[in-house]
Amino acid sequence: MPADAPETKRQATLGYGAQLVFYNRQAEDREAIARQLATSQGLTLIHPYDDLRIMAGQGTAAMEFLQQIPDLDLLLAPVGGGGLLSGCSVVARALNPAIGIFGVEVDVGNDTYLSLQNGERVTIPLPQTIADGIRTTTPGILTFEVMRQTLDGILLVNDAEIWQAMQFLLWRMKMLVEPSGAVAVAAVLSGKITVAGKRVGIVISGGNVDAELLKALM
Amino acid sequence: MPADAPETKRQATLGYGAQLVFYNRQAEDREAIARQLATSQGLTLIHPYDDLRIMAGQGTAAMEFLQQIPDLDLLLAPVGGGGLLSGCSVVARALNPAIGIFGVEVDVGNDTYLSLQNGERVTIPLPQTIADGIRTTTPGILTFEVMRQTLDGILLVNDAEIWQAMQFLLWRMKMLVEPSGAVAVAAVLSGKITVAGKRVGIVISGGNVDAELLKALM
Repeated sequence: MPADAPETKRQATLGYGAQLVFYNRQAEDREAIARQLATSQGLTLIHPYDDLRIMAGQGTAAMEFLQQIPDLDLLLAPVGGGGLLSGCSVVARALNPAIGIFGVEVDVGNDTYLSLQNGERVTIPLPQTIADGIRTTTPGILTFEVMRQTLDGILLVNDAEIWQAMQFLLWRMKMLVEPSGAVAVAAVLSGKITVAGKRVGIVISGGNVDAELLKALM
Repeated sequence: MPADAPETKRQATLGYGAQLVFYNRQAEDREAIARQLATSQGLTLIHPYDDLRIMAGQGTAAMEFLQQIPDLDLLLAPVGGGGLLSGCSVVARALNPAIGIFGVEVDVGNDTYLSLQNGERVTIPLPQTIADGIRTTTPGILTFEVMRQTLDGILLVNDAEIWQAMQFLLWRMKMLVEPSGAVAVAAVLSGKITVAGKRVGIVISGGNVDAELLKALM
């Protein structure tokens, strides 16, 4: 887990019985650390997004949407490594070929946007954003291939727009959502896509908000 | 609206286009004020709970529960005037005669508990509690009759137990719930009823939490 992960995320993870190993986002390679731990302790490595089973599991969010609303016009989801979005995109495209599917990422963390534009995976510098859960620098190998084939596009939002969305979610929807989880709501509220008259599904994912961030939000 | 209603409730109500009229809980009779306004301005009075249509509408919460989980063992809901609970109770009892149905109120605001015990509506002094949304002093005429015929009982919780439930809901469930809305969760978390091995439906209703209360909650 990044050493700067929210305290609530640490506590919740410990509460589920995990042993935490921290790393420095700027200086260390978490995949190398994980591989070394797996080898030395005989552990099974489960990649957080670049694994077909993880992608399929996260895609059940889209399945629930389309079971309830089969003729959904649009589906929006946050994109970090692309596990959630690629899983949702496969499911939604299969069940409703005409649906519009968009991922949403932070403007300064637009690695998936650039990768789709270039037709191959692009690596960007570590982005500075309040959306700490999606500070990836490149999409996954498997997730990129799925997104390339099934997505309609990527929408970009900035930190101020995320902030507005989090406040709306807290005070009007009564939901405590972390910055990364609120990006797709931010895209709609800030007018990045036309939704008038359409049935729109928005995936809101992640509620790791520290007391300090919540204070600022108030 | 009580003059001490949460600021977020005022703002949300104004946002929906309402004209607000305030009254003093201790000194004034809101039903008399409402009747007078209705007469002088030719308005239609809609009682917040003692109206069969309001009760039926609120009962759709239980209908959704039982459509998803037909063999629910227990259903718990907050009780103020009894609109939500009586509506839910009629629906749940009709769809699943064996279900256990319990209302939850604050120990110092136990007007429904006492009324059911006495077999007739009891009026108590205005209770002092953080659960401002259910500070009723007597159940409704219609709601009491329905609750008398369909409920299994009333559970009582105190302010400290409500507080614990609100914190759990905010930090682990990521839901901002007002004190009155969290009483049924408080009843379960504080062990007022045995839930082990049972399928339990809990109605969580109301998210009018002011910034001041949220600060205290943190």
